[in-house]
Amino acid sequence: MKPDQPQVADRVAELEEWLRKRGIGVLFDAQAAAWVGREAMSLEELAGRVDLLIVLGGDGTLLAAARAVGDRGVPLLGVNLGTLGFLAETSWEALFEALDGALEGRLVVAERMRLEVTVERRGEIVERELALNDAVIGKSALSRMIDLETRADGAYVTTYHSDGLIVATPTGSTAYSLSAGGPILVPEGRSIVLTPICPHTLTQRPLVLPEACRIEILVIDTRGGDVHLTVDGQIGARLEEGDRLRVVRAEHPARLLVSPGRSRFSVMREKLRWGER
Amino acid sequence: MKPDQPQVADRVAELEEWLRKRGIGVLFDAQAAAWVGREAMSLEELAGRVDLLIVLGGDGTLLAAARAVGDRGVPLLGVNLGTLGFLAETSWEALFEALDGALEGRLVVAERMRLEVTVERRGEIVERELALNDAVIGKSALSRMIDLETRADGAYVTTYHSDGLIVATPTGSTAYSLSAGGPILVPEGRSIVLTPICPHTLTQRPLVLPEACRIEILVIDTRGGDVHLTVDGQIGARLEEGDRLRVVRAEHPARLLVSPGRSRFSVMREKLRWGER
Amino acid sequence: MKPDQPQVADRVAELEEWLRKRGIGVLFDAQAAAWVGREAMSLEELAGRVDLLIVLGGDGTLLAAARAVGDRGVPLLGVNLGTLGFLAETSWEALFEALDGALEGRLVVAERMRLEVTVERRGEIVERELALNDAVIGKSALSRMIDLETRADGAYVTTYHSDGLIVATPTGSTAYSLSAGGPILVPEGRSIVLTPICPHTLTQRPLVLPEACRIEILVIDTRGGDVHLTVDGQIGARLEEGDRLRVVRAEHPARLLVSPGRSRFSVMREKLRWGER
Amino acid sequence: MKPDQPQVADRVAELEEWLRKRGIGVLFDAQAAAWVGREAMSLEELAGRVDLLIVLGGDGTLLAAARAVGDRGVPLLGVNLGTLGFLAETSWEALFEALDGALEGRLVVAERMRLEVTVERRGEIVERELALNDAVIGKSALSRMIDLETRADGAYVTTYHSDGLIVATPTGSTAYSLSAGGPILVPEGRSIVLTPICPHTLTQRPLVLPEACRIEILVIDTRGGDVHLTVDGQIGARLEEGDRLRVVRAEHPARLLVSPGRSRFSVMREKLRWGER
Repeated sequence: MKPDQPQVADRVAELEEWLRKRGIGVLFDAQAAAWVGREAMSLEELAGRVDLLIVLGGDGTLLAAARAVGDRGVPLLGVNLGTLGFLAETSWEALFEALDGALEGRLVVAERMRLEVTVERRGEIVERELALNDAVIGKSALSRMIDLETRADGAYVTTYHSDGLIVATPTGSTAYSLSAGGPILVPEGRSIVLTPICPHTLTQRPLVLPEACRIEILVIDTRGGDVHLTVDGQIGARLEEGDRLRVVRAEHPARLLVSPGRSRFSVMREKLRWGER
Repeated sequence: MKPDQPQVADRVAELEEWLRKRGIGVLFDAQAAAWVGREAMSLEELAGRVDLLIVLGGDGTLLAAARAVGDRGVPLLGVNLGTLGFLAETSWEALFEALDGALEGRLVVAERMRLEVTVERRGEIVERELALNDAVIGKSALSRMIDLETRADGAYVTTYHSDGLIVATPTGSTAYSLSAGGPILVPEGRSIVLTPICPHTLTQRPLVLPEACRIEILVIDTRGGDVHLTVDGQIGARLEEGDRLRVVRAEHPARLLVSPGRSRFSVMREKLRWGER
Repeated sequence: MKPDQPQVADRVAELEEWLRKRGIGVLFDAQAAAWVGREAMSLEELAGRVDLLIVLGGDGTLLAAARAVGDRGVPLLGVNLGTLGFLAETSWEALFEALDGALEGRLVVAERMRLEVTVERRGEIVERELALNDAVIGKSALSRMIDLETRADGAYVTTYHSDGLIVATPTGSTAYSLSAGGPILVPEGRSIVLTPICPHTLTQRPLVLPEACRIEILVIDTRGGDVHLTVDGQIGARLEEGDRLRVVRAEHPARLLVSPGRSRFSVMREKLRWGER
Repeated sequence: MKPDQPQVADRVAELEEWLRKRGIGVLFDAQAAAWVGREAMSLEELAGRVDLLIVLGGDGTLLAAARAVGDRGVPLLGVNLGTLGFLAETSWEALFEALDGALEGRLVVAERMRLEVTVERRGEIVERELALNDAVIGKSALSRMIDLETRADGAYVTTYHSDGLIVATPTGSTAYSLSAGGPILVPEGRSIVLTPICPHTLTQRPLVLPEACRIEILVIDTRGGDVHLTVDGQIGARLEEGDRLRVVRAEHPARLLVSPGRSRFSVMREKLRWGER
């Protein structure tokens, strides 16, 4: 649990009481623990000990929790305390009904493909991350452009001359990739999206590859500027010329508890306001 | 064989001679037959009798041949007589080497997913077509907009208020869908792309669905204008309000003879001029 | 006045009474006259006799009224009876305050540039129209593409291979042109926008030309399909190969009565929901 | 003069000889001086003493020279030593004919609108730059998004939540703005383009404003990341939350020597490859 706002203290307490009444043990991450005066545990430790991780917050909180969970199979239930999220679909109002559903086995676990991103520098792996939304290679504001030589399953695709490149999961297709002109994928779409950011070559349009594709990106020219890798918009690492990024489907997907009656399109309709211009 | 230009008569004759020398029987469609003074056969009949259909022309000729082949499994070898095509990759110059390769089993058959499109009107199927590139529902120039209620696997997606809607295969993603803002898919991508044409709602962006998805499109408002279905830009049928289109992956893919050494991306790079702005 | 809905009869009557009380004579177009049992007049005739044309309806009604007004200088006051329009900004609730403002000289007349579109066929002008939003050359659903050779002030621009071409005023930039990927212009922007519809060449992006530019479009290839000119989405004319369209700024702008306190951007913010994703 | 490549030394020498033969005095900037062993002068000093500045290089070299010229009226003649540029239109081969033309008064000076960009911090102007292409406010790769409150002539436009915002001249519309989805303007278009970079709100599309418009951009939230202003992709300055940028048309346009017979569209056709997909 990772609350974002002061008023969630009451909610954490209410939730704890609801769970304990049903004989369910409750553990807390540092922030939640602080709110209710309990013993804290790191997210990583939590992820190894609980059967369900209830995440109070927004999409960002859930992305961080999924990363902490890593390869452990514990499912996440995202509770949105602010505006509706693409990931944290459950509202506080709907939470207890959802928990009832979970206890009675009515909720299902939806597997969300993740990407494993590694950075190889002079023959050594210097970075390894899991992305539920996207891995982004981007230039700083002061650089003009970067050159990224890209391969898919060993075949040369193209060299992007652009502000950067987004490698997105289906889940991440409605996040940054969408702002950069990428298509929308349903979460269970078995694909990876490559969306160049402001490409100099106008015909280099978003590319949808099969999820089993092994993507390789070589940083061939930074033009003297800073280039960074960011994962899910949260984790960053500086890249150097010559760095070789490999992006493949992660072995272990993220596992989200979802309501089976809920359409995958209803969130899109609401978030993207498809009912209106 | 379906030649487009006068000068292909000589080429058809040259090709026939080359094949007969190797003991291979040759049959001709009406247009090719006329060029070389042989007996003609319909494309459909040809498709039932030959082991390989050599298609001289461009992408349009190959799309028509693939439709004539229908569910028969005969592979096509597209020979481009003009500019490079996305489908007809082999040039006249490379043809004989390709045929040598085919005879020696060095060419491979690439399966290209197709769509089966049916139109249901008042409970009856009034149209059934196979699309290798795309099925397009479009308004006439005089209409203002059409409303298309869309479902995927029974779940309501959205109602597009637009000039029309493109349902494209991976193969068709680089054709009309690309002009309408759609993403690029590799031919073996197991997805279907829904690209609205000039949508009134700017957030209705191209949608990539799994290839097993059953798509249903209901023509709910034509605003008094003409609305048509076109398949691969070649076959057309008038649609009426209330018509229900179903688009699913066809049982039988098209089968194209391709050179295994050829990268799927080299055609994109050349056609889309990725090397240049 | 041109009401769209049954319930406007009461509103027309209420408006008439309000105006007559203030000693203002009221004339009616056919539809408004029918509602309140008055003598009817054509819109064209009305436009020659009144000092202000109050248009009840939406943007479409106002576009039609502006066309009927033609070169006569009578200002229009658009009253939106449904959802907010880009053109008909005044709501029924705000109408009487607006009219008070108009009587006291607090409203200002905003001039909105229009386009004069002529079609020349075999040396003769066969069509001449005024457009407040746009002139659109478009293909029918069954055609594949049309070729439009385009010049600006006599200089060859390019030949568009596309579904069509939109020539939009600043006012029309938020209408069809926006759906086709065009930029947004403020109403007083002194420019004309050329937006190709689904261009085959991806680098043929919307082009903004100075409003004094004389645009010439030659229909060079219809590929056997129907091609039409539509003006403001309301008036249509069939085009033939060889037709030469000339589009220039019209001598007389449309004149709209607007509230000076109202920001030009507030309508955009509301219509395009800029406050939200 | 600012050569980019070793082989230009010979060209500088050849050019000097050609000019001196015609009795024309020649001065050199540091880099050109080094090549031919002459006395060097700063670009700024040069700009105050010559009648014509011949710029050998590409668009980048010309952008730098235009900035050095500042408000002095000396015209520039851009000579492209590599690939064709949007700004440096003259090739080495065409240079001497162009110079002949200039001497005989056949070349004309085209005025290119520039932007004056100032940054106000706590009531003080901390930065003032001239832009011939664009002023860009951008976030670093590690930031997630920035919030930019934007006004035009004092009227609130919108708050962009995006990677940044490009304010481009017509000249700059074919540079970075185009990559970010902006429209193309002819150089003499009297407009300013505001193109958001990867906006979170998909309906925040490029906005074309009259060139007399006073644009004001308030950096309201950097979300803890680095934000920079870059001018013509060459000059950079760090921005802080609360900084207020003002962008107006500069009093003095850049003055480029151009061939009057050359169409403004021929460069676009060649650079954007409009003849091909």
